[in-house]
Amino acid sequence: MLDLPFLPFCVLLGGLGFMCVAFVSAWCQRWRGGFAVDGSAQMFNWHPVLMVTGMVVLYGAAALVYRLPPTWRGPKLPWKVLHGALALAAFGLAVLGLAAVFRFHNDHGTPNMYSLHSWLGLVTVLLFSCQWLAGFSAFLLPWAPGWLRALYKPVHIFFGSTILMLSVASCISGINEKLFFSLKNGTTEYKLLPAEAVFANTLGLLILLFGVLVLGALARPSWKRPDADSPDSCQVPAPLWGSAG
Amino acid sequence: MLDLPFLPFCVLLGGLGFMCVAFVSAWCQRWRGGFAVDGSAQMFNWHPVLMVTGMVVLYGAAALVYRLPPTWRGPKLPWKVLHGALALAAFGLAVLGLAAVFRFHNDHGTPNMYSLHSWLGLVTVLLFSCQWLAGFSAFLLPWAPGWLRALYKPVHIFFGSTILMLSVASCISGINEKLFFSLKNGTTEYKLLPAEAVFANTLGLLILLFGVLVLGALARPSWKRPDADSPDSCQVPAPLWGSAG
Repeated sequence: MLDLPFLPFCVLLGGLGFMCVAFVSAWCQRWRGGFAVDGSAQMFNWHPVLMVTGMVVLYGAAALVYRLPPTWRGPKLPWKVLHGALALAAFGLAVLGLAAVFRFHNDHGTPNMYSLHSWLGLVTVLLFSCQWLAGFSAFLLPWAPGWLRALYKPVHIFFGSTILMLSVASCISGINEKLFFSLKNGTTEYKLLPAEAVFANTLGLLILLFGVLVLGALARPSWKRPDADSPDSCQVPAPLWGSAG
Repeated sequence: MLDLPFLPFCVLLGGLGFMCVAFVSAWCQRWRGGFAVDGSAQMFNWHPVLMVTGMVVLYGAAALVYRLPPTWRGPKLPWKVLHGALALAAFGLAVLGLAAVFRFHNDHGTPNMYSLHSWLGLVTVLLFSCQWLAGFSAFLLPWAPGWLRALYKPVHIFFGSTILMLSVASCISGINEKLFFSLKNGTTEYKLLPAEAVFANTLGLLILLFGVLVLGALARPSWKRPDADSPDSCQVPAPLWGSAG
């Protein structure tokens, strides 16, 4: 069981990611009135769907690109482009998701950025933007020297996992907050655990499981590229190293 | 900067952990009416203080025991006992913290275990109890065979980090939820960001920073015991291995 190969794990993870997107969409469609782009509560509903799809599922897919065995051989550039493109798509969805909630707040006279969920979420997206820009500058643009790439790579890897952890914590606190906001009256009170609450709590646990599995896959030594610690992560021939620093 | 030695980092982390405990205590004392053991809201206040102290700060200390260079030499048993004892103390505080919130709910006729925060928190504490029992059975009791210890060790390490991540997510969602519960009226509404909200949001970010730093320290290769991957994690002489499995 501990020797699970990577590709069947990916299929399982893909199914779980699909379930996360399906659950968050179904929650908003079935219980929160569906979707619109008019500043209404239906516009808010794009926020959870886009954040979960972008900052958790697509982000997780981007993070795992270098665990695919085909990426270990041949030129790295196409895989770098795929990694960067998936991350950029995730970031784009996150920006749209933020636009949805800001527009909803503004149209309803609700202040922005007061809850811990919003602080954490903004920290997460800001860190992600820095991570993407630094990764693009260091690994995709041709002019970063090899020593800088080698120095920055472990930092990029560390923040890659950290940002996913922050995304999951943001989703959990956001779902919890939304349920307290929405389930207030009579038979649908959150504390009476109506069907919507069970469904959205389950969504929270699915997102958590997805995040933990991605972090576990990233940390698993046998799934890392065999030369992961070598400094040849640049497209130009790597220099020889006097000391490993 | 990337070559920060472990002990100064520990001092910094200890200061941050102290700040987390001080902030959560000050929040409950200054804005939530202080502490009692009578089933009142003052009894509830033990819940955040004990969970942050146990499941984040003490847990983090327990997790980092094997990163102390003195643990790399000489007999392992005293360090195993320290690791297990710190984790047990963390678990004890968590159980008291759960008792505080269950007693408060029961005395006020509030259902238990309905919010996503409570589901996540219970999953975290249950996983922690399994982790402690399995770790105690495999690594402290003398009868587990070497191959079982070697097989279980990476699982224990993975869940060690995972449980800390879940603890941090539980704390974030709990602080967010508590602020929505408590800050409802007039000038103190959460969305108006009164001083209490800024203070408790900051507490949430401090807890997050503490968790991320502990996870980063655990993942940092140069702070791991040099023989971390060898199978000699038992007190009896390790057998020679035909294959590493």
